[in-house]
Amino acid sequence: MKSNFVVIEGLEGAGKTTARNTVVNVLNEQGINDIVFTREPGGTPLAEKLRELFKCGAEGDLPTIKAELLMIYAARVQLVETVIQPALARGAWVVGDRHDLSAQAYQGGGRGIDPHLMSSLRDTVLGDFRPDLTLYLDLPPSVGLQRARARGELDRIEQEALPFFERTRARYLELAAQDASIVTIDAAQTLEQVTADIRKVVVQWLQQQEGA
Amino acid sequence: MKSNFVVIEGLEGAGKTTARNTVVNVLNEQGINDIVFTREPGGTPLAEKLRELFKCGAEGDLPTIKAELLMIYAARVQLVETVIQPALARGAWVVGDRHDLSAQAYQGGGRGIDPHLMSSLRDTVLGDFRPDLTLYLDLPPSVGLQRARARGELDRIEQEALPFFERTRARYLELAAQDASIVTIDAAQTLEQVTADIRKVVVQWLQQQEGA
Repeated sequence: MKSNFVVIEGLEGAGKTTARNTVVNVLNEQGINDIVFTREPGGTPLAEKLRELFKCGAEGDLPTIKAELLMIYAARVQLVETVIQPALARGAWVVGDRHDLSAQAYQGGGRGIDPHLMSSLRDTVLGDFRPDLTLYLDLPPSVGLQRARARGELDRIEQEALPFFERTRARYLELAAQDASIVTIDAAQTLEQVTADIRKVVVQWLQQQEGA
Repeated sequence: MKSNFVVIEGLEGAGKTTARNTVVNVLNEQGINDIVFTREPGGTPLAEKLRELFKCGAEGDLPTIKAELLMIYAARVQLVETVIQPALARGAWVVGDRHDLSAQAYQGGGRGIDPHLMSSLRDTVLGDFRPDLTLYLDLPPSVGLQRARARGELDRIEQEALPFFERTRARYLELAAQDASIVTIDAAQTLEQVTADIRKVVVQWLQQQEGA
């Protein structure tokens, strides 16, 4: 079956929005125009409400680590079942700003949630549903946070201390090394070079898909 | 260790509020006055927001079966970790209007969610945390719904067809039969008889606790 779910991953400030535009440009050049964009956690009215709740809590009541994780998965499964899977089923492409790899990296790596709990929850909720291509934009957390700060106020997740983001990055790199469908892009390069790398990866991948 | 978490379970209209008052009266008579009440799903500001969201959805976006289940567990773990466990740790009693048995009965029985998914999620989220005594108020769904309707508008869950509640009741009875900590009360009796039965069960249980 042809594969149409492309995800962009990386720490805050890694350049995910620019990367998304690059991916879309490449797809358009290949005559692919039916593209659905998603942003996780969120992407449906219910999932966006959940995103707001797990980021800000309610009346000072912040989610515990487990509650946060369950809310993220509730938002994810709502998006997968009501948006992503129906779009893929009708032949559209889906380009996602984050997907499950974020949970593995932030909650599993950053927060240090038990890996067995993480994989058990993912398998229970998502079964074997996975993106077909993931572009992981890698850069040192200090650089990414500086960029994110320049854009405005940081949210609760973004205010975590630097070691949290170091652990998150380490898990991203570890998982990317184990999975051929995750391609690591050096996001510390110039914007032009990052864009050129993304174009190259996506073009090559599309050619492989056609050949397959 | 002395056990202090008592839960009242049953279909809508089974008389849970009256039962709670009876339990509290018995505890008070025994000189137990430090009692925390919980209502699930809900019971913390965040959990109440989740309850509202999974009952009503957002802008017409109703949760899928899996999203609903994850939201219920997010609310539950938030309540357990921030309210119930701290209360039990300081020696208070906790009397709950519903707890995990509701998920097993409504989502597992009523909605027919895969039992393996249900138990895997429960164990992942709650570990071996369980109520010490559960009073299950049993009555035919048609009777309970009639009572609930008389109280006002029914919510999304309560508007489910009768077979949904028949499946929920069947699962309640099945689980109660397997677990000595769950006592079934015949809630189709007169209010006086139900109250007498509850008093008897709680008094006997307290005596056993003291003897243990």
